[in-house]
Amino acid sequence: LPRPPTVASEEALIQGFLAPLAAGFPGAFGLKDDCACLLPPPGEDLVLTTDAVAEGVHFFSGDHAADVAWKALAVNVSDLAAKGARPIAYLMSLSFPEAPSEAWLQQFVSGLADAQTSFGIHLAGGDTDRRPGPVSISITAVGGVPAGRMVRRGTANPGDLLFLTGTLGDARLGLALRRDPELAEGFGLDAAGAASVVRRYLRPRPRLGLREALLGSARAAMDISDGLAKDLERLAKASGLRARVKGRDLPFSSPMFQSLESRPEFFLTAVTGGDDYEILAAVPPGSKRGFVAAATAGEVPVTEIGLLLPGEGVEILDRDGQILRIEAPGWDHFGGSE
Amino acid sequence: LPRPPTVASEEALIQGFLAPLAAGFPGAFGLKDDCACLLPPPGEDLVLTTDAVAEGVHFFSGDHAADVAWKALAVNVSDLAAKGARPIAYLMSLSFPEAPSEAWLQQFVSGLADAQTSFGIHLAGGDTDRRPGPVSISITAVGGVPAGRMVRRGTANPGDLLFLTGTLGDARLGLALRRDPELAEGFGLDAAGAASVVRRYLRPRPRLGLREALLGSARAAMDISDGLAKDLERLAKASGLRARVKGRDLPFSSPMFQSLESRPEFFLTAVTGGDDYEILAAVPPGSKRGFVAAATAGEVPVTEIGLLLPGEGVEILDRDGQILRIEAPGWDHFGGSE
Repeated sequence: LPRPPTVASEEALIQGFLAPLAAGFPGAFGLKDDCACLLPPPGEDLVLTTDAVAEGVHFFSGDHAADVAWKALAVNVSDLAAKGARPIAYLMSLSFPEAPSEAWLQQFVSGLADAQTSFGIHLAGGDTDRRPGPVSISITAVGGVPAGRMVRRGTANPGDLLFLTGTLGDARLGLALRRDPELAEGFGLDAAGAASVVRRYLRPRPRLGLREALLGSARAAMDISDGLAKDLERLAKASGLRARVKGRDLPFSSPMFQSLESRPEFFLTAVTGGDDYEILAAVPPGSKRGFVAAATAGEVPVTEIGLLLPGEGVEILDRDGQILRIEAPGWDHFGGSE
Repeated sequence: LPRPPTVASEEALIQGFLAPLAAGFPGAFGLKDDCACLLPPPGEDLVLTTDAVAEGVHFFSGDHAADVAWKALAVNVSDLAAKGARPIAYLMSLSFPEAPSEAWLQQFVSGLADAQTSFGIHLAGGDTDRRPGPVSISITAVGGVPAGRMVRRGTANPGDLLFLTGTLGDARLGLALRRDPELAEGFGLDAAGAASVVRRYLRPRPRLGLREALLGSARAAMDISDGLAKDLERLAKASGLRARVKGRDLPFSSPMFQSLESRPEFFLTAVTGGDDYEILAAVPPGSKRGFVAAATAGEVPVTEIGLLLPGEGVEILDRDGQILRIEAPGWDHFGGSE
């Protein structure tokens, strides 16, 4: 079989495929300059974050390039969303072990275009490289918040209530089914339920609708990309507090509830599994109504899952009210597996 | 032999090694938050650029980690320098195939600390990953320019003079000697000369001293990281012009002159070789004196090497005044080799 046509040069890759993604952002200069130029929005601070995804680590070789592109951008925008920032622009470093096919690039660019439209962000610049190793996509995203108002991780107070957006563990369940679709039947899932959790894994949706709730009513927040248990520990530790979460109050989707019926041990997986990209927020009790109202107005479901107390550590009660024993709270790239 | 101790966790890597690099930048929050916060400097636009270096592609496995770190930051700051921007902050994505040793990290951090001090920039955030493939360091750097004043690539006029900072081809010569130190003798180089060009390759120095000259007197500029021939073609093409450069006017260091005596064919190598990180600027004839004076005040040597004309393409005359035939003008990651 002949090899599919590959992109002929960096210039062809940048001008033929990537430049249209920068069309809406004047400071990108059509990706024809060495740097992007960003006019700071009046009265706003800039919020910056960077995250990379690599083939075989964060996505599978067989994943559709449009899904890979979506996720690479979504994981960065999720960090902006958790800080109350509106997305503005991003820079992207691409590296390939060999020249990608034009078909792959077309899919990749269409996934980015969809994500850009959905998140309200534009490509402003980047870098392309050929090097050994997995295909990798490293993105730096820039957002804006009203001056001095970035929602931080370590600023919660004792007594603050813990809220979580959406539902927990779907992406981890989706990952299991992405690895082995045959598991669905044993988990009691029909095709629609299985497809919905796989989609949660492949196409996370940053909770940009939570912005007003966070800026108006939250004292601290972060996204839970590395699993609730681990990220909750981070928020509590950064704030010098202890977190208590009731398993009975955790929000699960109906596919997750179905899976929990046949496999109760999935509760631990849901609590420690990563890739949810939901937002964990600490809200003063007096701001609870305002937070919920603003979240509802932003079309983001939120659930009160626990509270912060003086002390340290994290206590997660299981669905029977027993303290959950967690050996490995979540993913660590150097320390070991989840 | 026992393996040297490796870093135990992402947390240990970030808090034990990287956080001190962020100490001077309040918006880095000690690398304890998910995002960095940048207060836009009043009256300035922000300039953003991203560039990655990878083991085996941009640096050798045996290179000292302090040199690798310096270069990873320098290649980004060089892009800022060419746009007339002063460095502000950077984000860094690190990926390792296995946990790095503490000794390597200490060297790496000390190289970054040196570069930060030298360039006036701070670490503001980042991301660390373990994945197969080469060690790679992807940096996004942010700088500031007076509002509306970023020096672009495509804004030169016919008649503008071409200026180049420093000397040409040293890094490419240094790379050859880095690969095979025994070549030095055949090139007619003594130990000091050889060491100086190897250092040019390992520790490029962004031309930040050219800032006032660029902002005050240049119409267009870029750094020549991919070789003079290729980057000159880019500047000329972006400006819709033709470039003419006289080989006799090109600035060479004394080790390069010595090498050219024994190997005249190195002239082509110097013109097409990358990694110089000098700045190419287009200067209106009426601004020539101001440009040179400001460059001198900034302690940056500059040489007039040619001019821009109506038309298209690049014409480089060799040292005998003949038009140089260039088969491959410079490095292309996908199209082929230099």
